[in-house]
Amino acid sequence: MQLLETLKWRYATKKMNGQPVPQEKIDSILEAARLAPTSSGLQPFKILVVTNSELKAKIQPIAFGQTQIVDSSHLLIFAAWDKYTAERIDQVFAHTAAERGIPAESFDDYAGRLKNTYLNQSAQVNFEHAARQAYIAFGLAIAAAAELQVDATPMEGFDNVALDELLDLPAQGLKSVTLLPLGYRDQENDWLVNQKKVRTPKEDLFLEIA
Amino acid sequence: MQLLETLKWRYATKKMNGQPVPQEKIDSILEAARLAPTSSGLQPFKILVVTNSELKAKIQPIAFGQTQIVDSSHLLIFAAWDKYTAERIDQVFAHTAAERGIPAESFDDYAGRLKNTYLNQSAQVNFEHAARQAYIAFGLAIAAAAELQVDATPMEGFDNVALDELLDLPAQGLKSVTLLPLGYRDQENDWLVNQKKVRTPKEDLFLEIA
Repeated sequence: MQLLETLKWRYATKKMNGQPVPQEKIDSILEAARLAPTSSGLQPFKILVVTNSELKAKIQPIAFGQTQIVDSSHLLIFAAWDKYTAERIDQVFAHTAAERGIPAESFDDYAGRLKNTYLNQSAQVNFEHAARQAYIAFGLAIAAAAELQVDATPMEGFDNVALDELLDLPAQGLKSVTLLPLGYRDQENDWLVNQKKVRTPKEDLFLEIA
Repeated sequence: MQLLETLKWRYATKKMNGQPVPQEKIDSILEAARLAPTSSGLQPFKILVVTNSELKAKIQPIAFGQTQIVDSSHLLIFAAWDKYTAERIDQVFAHTAAERGIPAESFDDYAGRLKNTYLNQSAQVNFEHAARQAYIAFGLAIAAAAELQVDATPMEGFDNVALDELLDLPAQGLKSVTLLPLGYRDQENDWLVNQKKVRTPKEDLFLEIA
């Protein structure tokens, strides 16, 4: 099974070597994130793709100095919708109806139920829901990178508020949730590269109810 | 790229046919979830694997009658830690140190910083963080199932509190976050199987900053 081999190969790269990743590989990684399943198909997030060196240098201190920010080829920033709105929900279903060649009203009942649920919840509850969906795409982007033998560092350690401000995300209705520098490992200088991958034992992680 | 083909093949199966999935495929799907990266390697969740028909029948009304619950072969329930505790964090790093054959104290500083962060946040904030990690594993389990041509239905639509109560999850320090029925599509009776897969266009989902 290729995915398992892929997941065993990858690790949270601690030191990258600055080599560029071909655009076609970046495109495939992004496509995996785009194909990720999300609740009701809302895909309530955006992915920022940063290659600009000056911007990476500004982000590095916000990510507590982590060198992968500047030594990566591409820095992906997953940013979730800050809230759900009727307009955002309607836009998704209008697009789906158009793509399927069915009347826009086809989703009125379904979208109406979603709006009835989400618009009666707090923005914070809805943001948390959106963030979870972004994590599904984040996971698939990590897997896609590994399949292409592109290294990546899943990263939550950064000052979200400062990054949002730097990127003007509030004006776009977004809040950053995770970072994913993409690049290549610096084999000689990465302390983690030769460490054994450790996971919770099966018997502690799974509970069978037969 | 196999992962992209896999993701295009899958869809949120609406009607399953009750056929069993071989145990070796279930094991591979679970292994993908176990290998998922998580924040600091905490893996703050468990995955319940339900094959018991009576229990599935009790869960179905809690999941608003969705038939995949009872027509699935195996029902996975992703349940996140309800809170972080010093004991839970220490256990993870004790295990990692033992597996790597290094002194248990090796992680004292790192684990101490984690505890300083998490134990000063509310249980709710930490549960949300744990839930996000579970979603990474959830995404990889979905991808693993698809690679094996096992159908799956990512499912958030259920009464979490009722399910937690039924499964006695609070006593185990867990809260359910998602369901994943695994099985095989009922090709003739699934309204979604032949519908076009629609996703947000690239230009709306990605934002390049070069």
